Amino acid sequence: MLTYNFTEIGSDSMYEYLYRCIKDDILHGVLSAGTKLPSKRIFAKNLGISVITVENAYGQLMAEGYIYSIPKKGFYVCELKEIYMNNMISEEEDMEEDTQTKLISMDQEEKEYFADFSNNQTDTDVFPFSIWSKTMREVMNGNQEQLMTNAPGAGIMELREAIVKYLKQFRGMQVKAEQIVVGAGTDYLYGLLVQLLGRQVIYGVENPGYHKIAKIFEQMNAPYCYIDVDQDGVSAQKLEEKEVDVIHISPSHHFPTGIVMPISRRYELLGWASRKEGRYIIEDDYDSELRLTGKPIPTLQSIDVSDQVIYINTFTKTLCSTVRISYMVLPEPLLRKFYENLGFYSCTVSNFEQYILARFMENGSFEKHLNRLRNYYQNKRDRIMEAFREKPLGERITITEEDAGVHFLMKIHTEKKEEDMIADVKKKGIKLVPISQYYQGEKKHFDNTYVMNYSSIKMERVQEIASKLLLALT
Amino acid sequence: MLTYNFTEIGSDSMYEYLYRCIKDDILHGVLSAGTKLPSKRIFAKNLGISVITVENAYGQLMAEGYIYSIPKKGFYVCELKEIYMNNMISEEEDMEEDTQTKLISMDQEEKEYFADFSNNQTDTDVFPFSIWSKTMREVMNGNQEQLMTNAPGAGIMELREAIVKYLKQFRGMQVKAEQIVVGAGTDYLYGLLVQLLGRQVIYGVENPGYHKIAKIFEQMNAPYCYIDVDQDGVSAQKLEEKEVDVIHISPSHHFPTGIVMPISRRYELLGWASRKEGRYIIEDDYDSELRLTGKPIPTLQSIDVSDQVIYINTFTKTLCSTVRISYMVLPEPLLRKFYENLGFYSCTVSNFEQYILARFMENGSFEKHLNRLRNYYQNKRDRIMEAFREKPLGERITITEEDAGVHFLMKIHTEKKEEDMIADVKKKGIKLVPISQYYQGEKKHFDNTYVMNYSSIKMERVQEIASKLLLALT
Repeated sequence: MLTYNFTEIGSDSMYEYLYRCIKDDILHGVLSAGTKLPSKRIFAKNLGISVITVENAYGQLMAEGYIYSIPKKGFYVCELKEIYMNNMISEEEDMEEDTQTKLISMDQEEKEYFADFSNNQTDTDVFPFSIWSKTMREVMNGNQEQLMTNAPGAGIMELREAIVKYLKQFRGMQVKAEQIVVGAGTDYLYGLLVQLLGRQVIYGVENPGYHKIAKIFEQMNAPYCYIDVDQDGVSAQKLEEKEVDVIHISPSHHFPTGIVMPISRRYELLGWASRKEGRYIIEDDYDSELRLTGKPIPTLQSIDVSDQVIYINTFTKTLCSTVRISYMVLPEPLLRKFYENLGFYSCTVSNFEQYILARFMENGSFEKHLNRLRNYYQNKRDRIMEAFREKPLGERITITEEDAGVHFLMKIHTEKKEEDMIADVKKKGIKLVPISQYYQGEKKHFDNTYVMNYSSIKMERVQEIASKLLLALT
Repeated sequence: MLTYNFTEIGSDSMYEYLYRCIKDDILHGVLSAGTKLPSKRIFAKNLGISVITVENAYGQLMAEGYIYSIPKKGFYVCELKEIYMNNMISEEEDMEEDTQTKLISMDQEEKEYFADFSNNQTDTDVFPFSIWSKTMREVMNGNQEQLMTNAPGAGIMELREAIVKYLKQFRGMQVKAEQIVVGAGTDYLYGLLVQLLGRQVIYGVENPGYHKIAKIFEQMNAPYCYIDVDQDGVSAQKLEEKEVDVIHISPSHHFPTGIVMPISRRYELLGWASRKEGRYIIEDDYDSELRLTGKPIPTLQSIDVSDQVIYINTFTKTLCSTVRISYMVLPEPLLRKFYENLGFYSCTVSNFEQYILARFMENGSFEKHLNRLRNYYQNKRDRIMEAFREKPLGERITITEEDAGVHFLMKIHTEKKEEDMIADVKKKGIKLVPISQYYQGEKKHFDNTYVMNYSSIKMERVQEIASKLLLALT
């Protein structure tokens, strides 16, 4: 049985000490990948400490990707090469949900944060339950025949037509319904894109960026590389250097830096694409609807004349993260290949939800909901800004990139190391995610800047969160 | 503009003649892959025939996979190599829905058959609309917090627990909730399995069999080969010969032959798997719930002691084809790899439908529904058998494999070629699918045996269908 000597604990808390002992053993190979750790109860008894202490240490190790748990089986040491990746992605629930952390914590109490700035979940306050229920009833009563009729692989026409109208009205995009492909989440659509564009091309992933993309390319057996982002986003020169064929970007609101790609850079990238056949830009427009100030930026898709932009968007941000509906707009020259090669796949979204969403969009409920959502987030953001910028807290932090989406960046002015800062605020019940986690490779930015997703933050707690934060900083 | 001389039409109908002219031109390379055919209206005008005639000819060519249409764009000639595949899969809606045909016919009136024995759609009569609606309302009112909480990648625990109970009660399987992976349809789960088991192994696909599987392996870049089925299913010897590592089978009810794999063969295959690490059997149990007579056969999964069976099943047969929920049961040794490598994927089924289905199963509605469904299909089958076996029709056909699932085999005793037979019954509004279409390679069985899926057949039409069939045969 694994054992540690608690006489050398120093100034650490019990759980921090235990956490560091195990972590060191993993990093030094004493505990090898796949090793099963003792159960919390038995370990606690053996070390003469409380179960809570072991639980906290294991929780921290899981959160940092050193160990994982199989529900009802126990805790195991991760592969060392995985550890780095896990650290990179463990906080990526900002763009998508934190399924991994959810899963591995199935067998223990979910750690309840007072304020979790990593969580992208939709607040129950803001989901339109009553109108959604009403639409459900209407569809269940009025569309029984259609509900039982198999949908085309790319989705029912009613929903695709509704998306076409929506894109025209709100994004100024002129597309046809047959260009729209509906699927159960963007993960699934990225997988389809690899099948469509093939594995003979090189995919580019932004660095820093949404690293889940890289994991999907990895699993789909598609070659990819990271492209460093400068102050305007990725550059054509870097793409040429790395011989990328297909680049994934979020020009309207880069994640996590918040960069809005200037129009000149947009044209530069379109120029890059048009110089060679088979080059594509995957434009991820994941949160343009939630832009809180100013006019939305025109999409690359809408200014592309060479049919080399694949536009992708999701309802998981605007409706809720648990309704799994995303869509992409394929350029017309790709349609034939799509229908010929991938047309055999069944649609992954059920008819019921497709018809409900189509009706919700057609009868104007979606637009009303979006307006309400923007107001709600604006209000929340204003409250947070007001509380956070008040002195003395306001003097210790700098907030940037607060105009778009439901996250902003917060730099904490401190001498502390990031990991210590995160641990300190965690003790106050606040979860922070450093921007450094989204950087791949050597050039990490450990400068105490945090990506603050405020979608799940409770309005009434904002003042108290500011106080707790201040306490942690001092 | 394409033109044909209608003076040599002979005894063919106008549309048959046009269909054969175009088909010949495609087969002889006069019309090459990708060629756009004239629009129906312009072609009709040019040839001096009616639009309906062109429409019928195009319809037949599409059904046989010679041409395809892009909605609102027009009709195009398929690749010759695709034609063979399309012929193989064009009727495979028997196991899954016919999304491709649906899609390519989006821009024209759906061809309405009086009786379509290729269609797997659920009759609106049999879907439990009222209880499903009631369950929806309960979930919408009672589970708001859970509905907004991101699900683990493998699905919500409530549904996985309900599936565990169900498998125990109805299939005698002892599995744990963490072994269950819920996904949006079996297509998606097969894709996940390739990602889990890798592309360094050889996948085996039954011949004859469900050829959509092969298309998925193809798209997922996984090496595969066909394994001929004998009277008991696939044999261990054939698997050894072809060096297969992972074999996909449906032992409870082989599609399309209806073979139930005998227990000796089941043990033989388990023995094959256990002889080498990394070998797996994917057991597709797609319609065991609908077995109409006798006891269900025990699953391979339940007699496997070496953890090498991956069980897969779907609700698209038992609930309806348009609710996209399937699941698989992973053997425990694969769990770690699954959670480590694929745990980052978001679940593809929305929380709403997961909670509705979980509750539907937990409160006994699913069991009641299954009983009702079995009665409904048994009744329908009995009516069909009675009508079809009556003389003189009964003397011209032989029906076999009618005890399981919602299809049976019908052999027509005739000298006619299959293609002529199909065309003749089609004129009477009946769509038949020959079993030969499910054979890959040389060893096709053109013996006028048809796979009769009766799920979408209207009860009240059964007598008339028998009369029409008799007329077509004489």
